[in-house]
Amino acid sequence: MSVLGLGAMGGVLAAAAVRDGYETTVWNRSAGRAQALVAEGAVAAPTAGEAIRGSQIVVVCLLDHASVHEVLDPLVGDLAGRTLLNVTTTSPAEARELAAWAAASGVEYLDGGILAVPAMIGQPGSTILCSGSAAAFGRCAPLLDRWGKSTYFGEDAGLASLYDLALLASMYVMFAGFLHGAAMVAPAGVSAREFAGMAAPWLTAMTGGFDGFAAVIDGKDYTVAGQQSLEFSDLSHIVSASAEQGISTEVIDMVQRLVRRQIDLGHGSDGFARIIESIKAPA
Amino acid sequence: MSVLGLGAMGGVLAAAAVRDGYETTVWNRSAGRAQALVAEGAVAAPTAGEAIRGSQIVVVCLLDHASVHEVLDPLVGDLAGRTLLNVTTTSPAEARELAAWAAASGVEYLDGGILAVPAMIGQPGSTILCSGSAAAFGRCAPLLDRWGKSTYFGEDAGLASLYDLALLASMYVMFAGFLHGAAMVAPAGVSAREFAGMAAPWLTAMTGGFDGFAAVIDGKDYTVAGQQSLEFSDLSHIVSASAEQGISTEVIDMVQRLVRRQIDLGHGSDGFARIIESIKAPA
Repeated sequence: MSVLGLGAMGGVLAAAAVRDGYETTVWNRSAGRAQALVAEGAVAAPTAGEAIRGSQIVVVCLLDHASVHEVLDPLVGDLAGRTLLNVTTTSPAEARELAAWAAASGVEYLDGGILAVPAMIGQPGSTILCSGSAAAFGRCAPLLDRWGKSTYFGEDAGLASLYDLALLASMYVMFAGFLHGAAMVAPAGVSAREFAGMAAPWLTAMTGGFDGFAAVIDGKDYTVAGQQSLEFSDLSHIVSASAEQGISTEVIDMVQRLVRRQIDLGHGSDGFARIIESIKAPA
Repeated sequence: MSVLGLGAMGGVLAAAAVRDGYETTVWNRSAGRAQALVAEGAVAAPTAGEAIRGSQIVVVCLLDHASVHEVLDPLVGDLAGRTLLNVTTTSPAEARELAAWAAASGVEYLDGGILAVPAMIGQPGSTILCSGSAAAFGRCAPLLDRWGKSTYFGEDAGLASLYDLALLASMYVMFAGFLHGAAMVAPAGVSAREFAGMAAPWLTAMTGGFDGFAAVIDGKDYTVAGQQSLEFSDLSHIVSASAEQGISTEVIDMVQRLVRRQIDLGHGSDGFARIIESIKAPA
């Protein structure tokens, strides 16, 4: 296999492949990055074209979507008949565009979204989201397994990226929620570390509620019994307590607006999961 | 022990005490609620005063702060010398007011925040946050242990409630983040259940990052090495991808504003944990 792009992530992906006995060819726009990998057993290609022609599976891990086109457009003839695994961060629309571009030239295209920092590659917890050509996924699966737990979402090349961004969105919002809680207790002399020690197991336990929300959403009936109602989920008391601590209320206001919009529409006795309707339909 | 208030939570607390062999006296404003508990072995007191005079530990689980005063104010003489454990939902300021009111009448006051729904009482995962009189906590600890894992935060009676609200805030914000992710992938035909199956383990793993953020925050140095920078945390691509899915961007916009405010103040190369400064200082 060949790796084009030896930044922090590309370098670690190539190193993991070398360690697992893959014949690994590497290329980077600026030379020098390849040296350490060559010492471990990789072959440095002097040009991107030689790197592509040297392997059946070509992994690209470049700066962005534009860089991918810049490097690969002149070499599309060389790519024909090969498998292109693109782990460069792209938007769903960009991934779909690349898939169409590849298909038009006889290239099997697989889009990969890596849910891990470079240090996690090959370790438990590293996840690689994939979509695009099923044949390409089959061919890349053994390699992907070296890097993390891979999941294939289907032929829509944009799906891996969409999933990736959706999971990252959930994560960043959770981080903001944690930091809001830490900011609430800080004026009372509670350290962030102490709060983290309570919040991490608490939020972990509360992820257990996702399935219940999901069942209600997929069932398209927000009135089923056993749910916490939106009226009960009015967050005025949390907003007030935040304000009384002298901190910004914008983090919790965001949730309260989603709740209030559904109550104002007359759905106060429906379950909490209904706030997804506030998100699905922009105000 | 006595329980005043036999709503969904009060009833379960009393039932758990009866089951564990406590001599349990119960009272509720409207009669009838006590019958099932009496069948299990509780004693129904005809008045709140008799319920108070019957036990050294008096647990109140009423509608709100005003209800607590309404029921207890006329009986403050009977409460003197006893331990009052208030698990009614109150704000930090209300808990402090009740603690002062109790102290003035020789009542040992402990404020409790129950992090559990009634069905969880006595089960793993049920947590009871306590603050107020240390002596009262010592006296109530065996009883609290029947209901869940109890934690004592100190003499400030408002702290349990503040902690409770901070953890609930974190939870509601995390739920909004999960639902935003589910709304992003929904137009691509991904069910909420499928997304929940990815999001729950992912967010659980990412709670592992809280300690690192907390160490930076407590260390008061957002420039320490090894952090993801705020510039790298610019969420424009997630905002765009959300908009392209036709959903509201308000959930992720909230985090993006916290990030941008710190970047605009010139802290773009600082670590992500710095967004707590956006929360601590209202814009």
